Amino acid sequence: MGKGLTKRSEDYSKWYNELVVKADLAENSAVRGCMVIKPYGYAIWEKMQAELDRMFKETGHQNAYFPLFVPKSLFEAEEKNAEGFAKECAVVTHYRLKNDPEKEGKLIVDPEAKLEEELVVRPTSEAIIWNTYKTWIQSYRDLPILINQWANVVRWEMRTRLFLRTAEFLWQEGHTAHATKAEAIQEAQQMQEVYAQFAQEFMAMPVIKGVKTEHERFAGADDTYTIEALMQDGKALQAGTSHFLGQNFAKAFDVKFASKEGKLEHVWATSWGVTTRLIGALIMTHSDDLGLVLPPKLAPIQVAIVPIYRGEDQLEEISKVANQLAVDLKKEGISVKYDDRDTHKPGWKFAQYELQGVPVRIAIGPKDLEKGTVELARRDTLTKEFVPKNEVVEKVKQLMVEIQDNIYQKALDFRENHITAVDDFEAFKEVLNTKGGFVSAHWDGTKETEQKIKDLTKATIRCIPLDTKEEAGSCVLTAKPSSQRVLFAKAY
Amino acid sequence: MGKGLTKRSEDYSKWYNELVVKADLAENSAVRGCMVIKPYGYAIWEKMQAELDRMFKETGHQNAYFPLFVPKSLFEAEEKNAEGFAKECAVVTHYRLKNDPEKEGKLIVDPEAKLEEELVVRPTSEAIIWNTYKTWIQSYRDLPILINQWANVVRWEMRTRLFLRTAEFLWQEGHTAHATKAEAIQEAQQMQEVYAQFAQEFMAMPVIKGVKTEHERFAGADDTYTIEALMQDGKALQAGTSHFLGQNFAKAFDVKFASKEGKLEHVWATSWGVTTRLIGALIMTHSDDLGLVLPPKLAPIQVAIVPIYRGEDQLEEISKVANQLAVDLKKEGISVKYDDRDTHKPGWKFAQYELQGVPVRIAIGPKDLEKGTVELARRDTLTKEFVPKNEVVEKVKQLMVEIQDNIYQKALDFRENHITAVDDFEAFKEVLNTKGGFVSAHWDGTKETEQKIKDLTKATIRCIPLDTKEEAGSCVLTAKPSSQRVLFAKAY
Repeated sequence: MGKGLTKRSEDYSKWYNELVVKADLAENSAVRGCMVIKPYGYAIWEKMQAELDRMFKETGHQNAYFPLFVPKSLFEAEEKNAEGFAKECAVVTHYRLKNDPEKEGKLIVDPEAKLEEELVVRPTSEAIIWNTYKTWIQSYRDLPILINQWANVVRWEMRTRLFLRTAEFLWQEGHTAHATKAEAIQEAQQMQEVYAQFAQEFMAMPVIKGVKTEHERFAGADDTYTIEALMQDGKALQAGTSHFLGQNFAKAFDVKFASKEGKLEHVWATSWGVTTRLIGALIMTHSDDLGLVLPPKLAPIQVAIVPIYRGEDQLEEISKVANQLAVDLKKEGISVKYDDRDTHKPGWKFAQYELQGVPVRIAIGPKDLEKGTVELARRDTLTKEFVPKNEVVEKVKQLMVEIQDNIYQKALDFRENHITAVDDFEAFKEVLNTKGGFVSAHWDGTKETEQKIKDLTKATIRCIPLDTKEEAGSCVLTAKPSSQRVLFAKAY
Repeated sequence: MGKGLTKRSEDYSKWYNELVVKADLAENSAVRGCMVIKPYGYAIWEKMQAELDRMFKETGHQNAYFPLFVPKSLFEAEEKNAEGFAKECAVVTHYRLKNDPEKEGKLIVDPEAKLEEELVVRPTSEAIIWNTYKTWIQSYRDLPILINQWANVVRWEMRTRLFLRTAEFLWQEGHTAHATKAEAIQEAQQMQEVYAQFAQEFMAMPVIKGVKTEHERFAGADDTYTIEALMQDGKALQAGTSHFLGQNFAKAFDVKFASKEGKLEHVWATSWGVTTRLIGALIMTHSDDLGLVLPPKLAPIQVAIVPIYRGEDQLEEISKVANQLAVDLKKEGISVKYDDRDTHKPGWKFAQYELQGVPVRIAIGPKDLEKGTVELARRDTLTKEFVPKNEVVEKVKQLMVEIQDNIYQKALDFRENHITAVDDFEAFKEVLNTKGGFVSAHWDGTKETEQKIKDLTKATIRCIPLDTKEEAGSCVLTAKPSSQRVLFAKAY
């Protein structure tokens, strides 16, 4: 039972925290709110990065790198953006430490090394980037600029949780500049679509594409496009956002271009990002009481092979078969770990690979040698079967596809079963407090109602779905007229 | 002439600074000493990363990620390390900004959001990592730990230059933990060898492997292994270092393990890193008065195809040939850019690809269509030839190897011609002031002499080469006895 892992039904939140640590994904560090991403967790991030990076490049983007620090005067230039992030930013004020004259071996901040202007550790890079774009853009010929950056950012959040909300996190942030409003909106929508595809195809995580309400928008955006996922505890998770920034940053940083017609106009902007939070989403979408369940496309180890043996002679014979199998699987691009450590028993190894979500486990014992078979176990269904040795590679290739599809379908079924349309506020609260999930309801379109519902239920409007239909109705709280349903949920 | 690029012979330093900017590699930012790495420069870094990352993984290392911040109390734990970096570190003291009550729209540091303990932005991560390893290591079974991290670091240097010395830079830092001294030393030496291989095979940059003197060692190391390259102006450049850290960090952070024999012992450590400085080294090793010369293995664009045409009809016909050629080259894994922009003339494009160091340029004009040829130009030798259309792919494949070899050989010849053995101090100074390069000389082994020579000539001991031979001699400054020559040079 997952090495004493708390069950989801007992305490979902505790289950999550324990799993992240026990599966060796990440841990808390000595720095408040900052995590250490351990090799197994980082390997998942690397796989995510590789696919996303490919998708960004296929849609015409290039990577670049901008400074970690934002001088205060640039930080405050776009007012809404500054207001949104000022409350939670780390500020560098000095550039030197010196020996503490009172305590030997200790250091203190050197008051003589105070910066003339404070530097904010980037919580997001619009300010520093648009200050740079100003010098890159003169004419329509310089547009569009399609740049992405892989970086760390810092937001001094008070309540943090591994992967889901940390003071420092890793992410990518795209920052694009366009000559027209239409082109910028199209870019923002395109990147939302890229994120949705990535979530569904690689993370096996269904998402709802939608638009944020004004209240939930990114600070400084005219529109925020979002992908929203649903976790097994019925809470929603914002998995990626793409912002149409209008001309807000171009105006704040005075970025203009000469159009084909020779007119001087402000540039249109987008920004879009996903973060290491996706690892938290991945965990909570698929995993169970035994541990992680990882989609084959993002699993650092896709197949683990465990020998079952007594004595060196048996091990040697089994290893011949196992090593050959590993070679054959690797030829097909499948990542394999043959675990012949003599420090741990097979049962311990089985539990470990279950805990770490390895999609397929192969066990080979003396009887298998006799029969020319191996035992093959699926992590997602926990089923086992014996497979003839010469069919294993084909079988594993099939399973990589099947498991990916199966866990997607399972998550999709769960999500579909957790979208509930309600028309009165009692039902609204009832659904949120029992079943959870998304509640599809009419809303009168005002910030006040949105806030009141949040105060009363903790549910927020996750998004106005892109595929929402015109439908006359009345607001679930105020009964005022409404023309479309929106999705509410409690959220991470 | 490289769009008005200063000649190396006129002002080498100016040539370098201009080239970095004109070739679109990087530029200075609004943050003192921090650079913006532009897409073309970042693409080179990505290629470097890909190869290095593969080499690290092939030697058994895994990636992970540790916090950006180091609490002051951890930072000061290893005394020499702290002393080495305290003078140039960015310090976070507050976690919030608030509205300036005196100036609307402005922000000030909120004095109520002062951190209890200051955080140092990592200049290097030994402290935060060894504080973490403490909890990971109990027994010899937990060793070795072989971890690498790709990250940004900050060192508040007073004099900065794009790529060569910047306040923030990108790097990788390996941090390994071992049960024995011998194993740690072997690891440090292995990574020096990996760096040397990378420099030579991929950057086409010959390097000398050696050991640093005590004076030039990393702060906190017992030994620093280095690779030293020679730039075209006769100055040396430290291109990568690998440190045997002894038990210094294990002692500072109290990291002990139970050995097989059950004894509690301090762990042995290494760390090793290369940085975006390598891009500076790459530029200065190969480039010329026309611009960059890039080794094919690291060139973001390996082949540029330029059509030479009058009118749409000609362009259409040429494009058929060019597009097919691009497809054929891409099939062979060669990165191609077909530049059919009508906003720029062929001559402008030729100069641009020369400036950006694209190894092979192909031009296709109407005469080529008639004859079934293309014009092929090498960036390294600036030679041109006509090649039959159906031989181009093979020819380009050959050239990728030839150019890589040729620029390596050229750099090696230059380096070999710039190692001068001298036996008296007049000759020592004479060589440094005229020819430059490495000066191979006897040294009495004392810090004092090393410092005096530096004060008199600006030359430092770059390294004691690994292949140095025992040879009786007398110190070039003090005439005291010495048993081996070391390499001096002025350095970046």
